[in-house]
Amino acid sequence: MGHIATTIDSFHRGRFVLVQPKTGAHRAGVDALLLSACVADGFDGHLADLGSGSGAASLAVLSRCEKARASLFEISETMVELARQTKAQSNNAHLADRVDIHLADITANGMKRAESGLSPNTFDWVIANPPFNEADDRRSPHSERAFAHVMDGKTIELWSRTAASVCKSDGHFSMILRPQSLGELLAGFMGRFGGMRITPVQPRLNEDATRILVTGKKGSKQKLQITPPLILHAGTGRDFTERADAIINGLQSLDPPS
Amino acid sequence: MGHIATTIDSFHRGRFVLVQPKTGAHRAGVDALLLSACVADGFDGHLADLGSGSGAASLAVLSRCEKARASLFEISETMVELARQTKAQSNNAHLADRVDIHLADITANGMKRAESGLSPNTFDWVIANPPFNEADDRRSPHSERAFAHVMDGKTIELWSRTAASVCKSDGHFSMILRPQSLGELLAGFMGRFGGMRITPVQPRLNEDATRILVTGKKGSKQKLQITPPLILHAGTGRDFTERADAIINGLQSLDPPS
Repeated sequence: MGHIATTIDSFHRGRFVLVQPKTGAHRAGVDALLLSACVADGFDGHLADLGSGSGAASLAVLSRCEKARASLFEISETMVELARQTKAQSNNAHLADRVDIHLADITANGMKRAESGLSPNTFDWVIANPPFNEADDRRSPHSERAFAHVMDGKTIELWSRTAASVCKSDGHFSMILRPQSLGELLAGFMGRFGGMRITPVQPRLNEDATRILVTGKKGSKQKLQITPPLILHAGTGRDFTERADAIINGLQSLDPPS
Repeated sequence: MGHIATTIDSFHRGRFVLVQPKTGAHRAGVDALLLSACVADGFDGHLADLGSGSGAASLAVLSRCEKARASLFEISETMVELARQTKAQSNNAHLADRVDIHLADITANGMKRAESGLSPNTFDWVIANPPFNEADDRRSPHSERAFAHVMDGKTIELWSRTAASVCKSDGHFSMILRPQSLGELLAGFMGRFGGMRITPVQPRLNEDATRILVTGKKGSKQKLQITPPLILHAGTGRDFTERADAIINGLQSLDPPS
């Protein structure tokens, strides 16, 4: 681990920090923070973070929900080590005893998953930021190969299967994906999670969505809903909208209690 | 036909009229006008209108696109008769020679469909407003029965199959549906239509979508997109937003040329 360059970055206006690779796709960004915002305000249960990286989404949930605890599951030994360094940061001392970290393959069979801590019917909320989100963004947006890769359905199907397995009977599952994965998403949720709420994320008011946030409830028969979009930036500048700023800084969830 | 009470209603600020049942689910409303707006401005090809009712969506396309022609396909003999009366109205004389009307079962097999005018590879744009849109809205929004009815996948699957059959190789297909039919929709389009553009329709700025408009292109490998929503009403009143008013009155398509 001595040979990977890292940075220590501050999130939620200094309320927690992350130890991250200095460069590359594993650096946490807006996606992880948006995903964390799917978890309801006041959540006080046990969170499973599938593909946790160095822990950005989980720490963002713990920072906003003071009674929650989180289990991180990550296949990269490097990222697991950075998550451990993150947990050990003095700036994260108020969160550290609510975090455990596991080296795990989300797509493994049930017995192997359970050995890595992904036990059936265990978690109250599961969140996932599947890895191809970054991988595909570096390809040509219109290449057929990228399309085929996204639409083969394996990744979201396998992650959804694992999420349904480890989720308690009334638990929730939230994912962040690109819009073109909508077909895979609905196929993966079908028969496992219902009552889906889909929130398109638009860079600006008049631009197509670049991400979708989705939350479903295990076994729910409620109808799918499409909420008003989350708009990230106001006008044409780099400033976040008031709502996006509050969400990204852990001041509110995506759907605050009304 | 003498025994059904009808009204003659004006659309597009008087630019065409419809002969419709005085009451009931077959009366055309905002849905038909929104569906018509999926067809691009300047469209000059041959439109197929699946489940045309008395012709609202088709006439709205012909009223906006002066070189287009339309074939209406409808299973109800009553509605076919009203469509014929609609075509015969003197107020529609400028549209009548671009309209033909067919009694047809959209879900019939290929040979029967062709006999009713639904011939393979014939149409440049297909539009559809499947009948359960109205039927289900009168049920409890949360009933499991309604959910099962919507999610059995048969209607949208069969209508999409017919749409793909009658559409020319570079033709388009547009539908209006409720958000909870999104799973069926994507399953029905898969392998038939790509480059889908999904536009959520919200009653108001901060309310969940109540309809989705979707357009796909036959055989396209382009990625699915979710556009900014169409907001119907401004503030809390009954007034339409400027954009919705222009769309509903045939002054512009859903996506005007930029």
